[in-house]
Amino acid sequence: MQTLKVIKIGGNIIDDEDALNSFLEDFAQLKSPKILIHGGGKLATKLAQEMNVEVVMNEGRRITDAKTLDIITMVYAGKVNKTIVAKLQANNCNSVGFSGADGNSIVSEKRPIQEVDYGFVGDVKKVNTPIIQVLLDNGITPVFSAITHDENGQLLNTNGDTIASELAIAFAKAYRTELYYCFEKNGVLKDINDDDSVIENINTETYQTLLKDGTISDGMLPKLKNCFYALEHQVQKICIGKPAMLFNENITHTTIQK
Amino acid sequence: MQTLKVIKIGGNIIDDEDALNSFLEDFAQLKSPKILIHGGGKLATKLAQEMNVEVVMNEGRRITDAKTLDIITMVYAGKVNKTIVAKLQANNCNSVGFSGADGNSIVSEKRPIQEVDYGFVGDVKKVNTPIIQVLLDNGITPVFSAITHDENGQLLNTNGDTIASELAIAFAKAYRTELYYCFEKNGVLKDINDDDSVIENINTETYQTLLKDGTISDGMLPKLKNCFYALEHQVQKICIGKPAMLFNENITHTTIQK
Repeated sequence: MQTLKVIKIGGNIIDDEDALNSFLEDFAQLKSPKILIHGGGKLATKLAQEMNVEVVMNEGRRITDAKTLDIITMVYAGKVNKTIVAKLQANNCNSVGFSGADGNSIVSEKRPIQEVDYGFVGDVKKVNTPIIQVLLDNGITPVFSAITHDENGQLLNTNGDTIASELAIAFAKAYRTELYYCFEKNGVLKDINDDDSVIENINTETYQTLLKDGTISDGMLPKLKNCFYALEHQVQKICIGKPAMLFNENITHTTIQK
Repeated sequence: MQTLKVIKIGGNIIDDEDALNSFLEDFAQLKSPKILIHGGGKLATKLAQEMNVEVVMNEGRRITDAKTLDIITMVYAGKVNKTIVAKLQANNCNSVGFSGADGNSIVSEKRPIQEVDYGFVGDVKKVNTPIIQVLLDNGITPVFSAITHDENGQLLNTNGDTIASELAIAFAKAYRTELYYCFEKNGVLKDINDDDSVIENINTETYQTLLKDGTISDGMLPKLKNCFYALEHQVQKICIGKPAMLFNENITHTTIQK
């Protein structure tokens, strides 16, 4: 069975042009079929400021009104996605940019209003693999921005980590699938202020302990939830750490396993 | 031989949400393989104003500095392209949004600086059909924004009419290709102020006369240049007029023929 690498890159790589160029140069060299998922980094917030659109956050999550959705679509699916695709082409990695609307690849539903109205935020309902599969079969690397749609013409803002895990799960039948979350830290840390305190392995049992003792908190909570969700759905290998872990197995990082 | 329709829609359709919805509803019903090309209408100018970026024009053409290229990429490839793709999905027309960077489909080169420096403007050098062909073979409608790339990582702003004619020419070997330029007028007009003065047929001979007597001028000059260029390169049918001509053959429009 062929291996498919599903790789999510975080905002810090996108915000730093040199880091992005260097990452894409290495990424282009990865031999196996691969899918890249990206968000928009600080660019969306910067554009909102330039347009005098207020950024409203609730517990670290962006409230997406119509104007904010426009900004996110422009930055994520426009500027960032096309910049990445053009740079990959320059590195001889033939790629096609995707939102979930393209090829009807990721269908989501608008999050129901409960305590908070998150606006145009979508929770993934279904991944349709055929068109992505056709591209992978033709040696193309799909590059996904964190935008989905509801099949009724509405674009929706969707968490990039979730898109990565849902794509990995959707392809777990056709490939031996590996899921990589690349961000600015070396992995899941025991002490958030000490980048050397990486927890190298987390399994279902130790996960519960780390949750209980509060080691896993804030932004790491949804990321690890996505990891264990993928693990339960036949994704074979799940890693969290700096992008360097993709190109050198000896680089310290966190591996999630059963 | 199968017929491929290559359809360019102008800014006026994009600027009017009802007109766009109605057009896309009809477009989705067109049975034959088809490619849609769009610009960004007034949205790019509006965003430039909101961001306090000066719009500099030279003889009706936008000067594209780095900031303007960002705006165009965000509006054309982001907001407009993804909105169209999501609306087509809602009309059961499976589509994938493209810039020329995606699939390395349209390669251009930065226009050399002569009397005017147009900035990041690209003239089409090559159309690569394989990936678009794969999508067409799988029943997918490619939707192109007027952005290309130079294969060295640089995105470039490219005339949408030119992209349409170059795509039509590139597929003229594999299909009986038809090229449609849809805009706000009924066709090429004898009197620009009289929408009933449509010249229904223009051939190589009458084209020369219309050029000499000044009937064809301003924005119509490059459009017709694209038409005759396509005609000389095996495009079978070329029409200019309102979108309605696509869905009803009796609607008055201009046909370009040998």
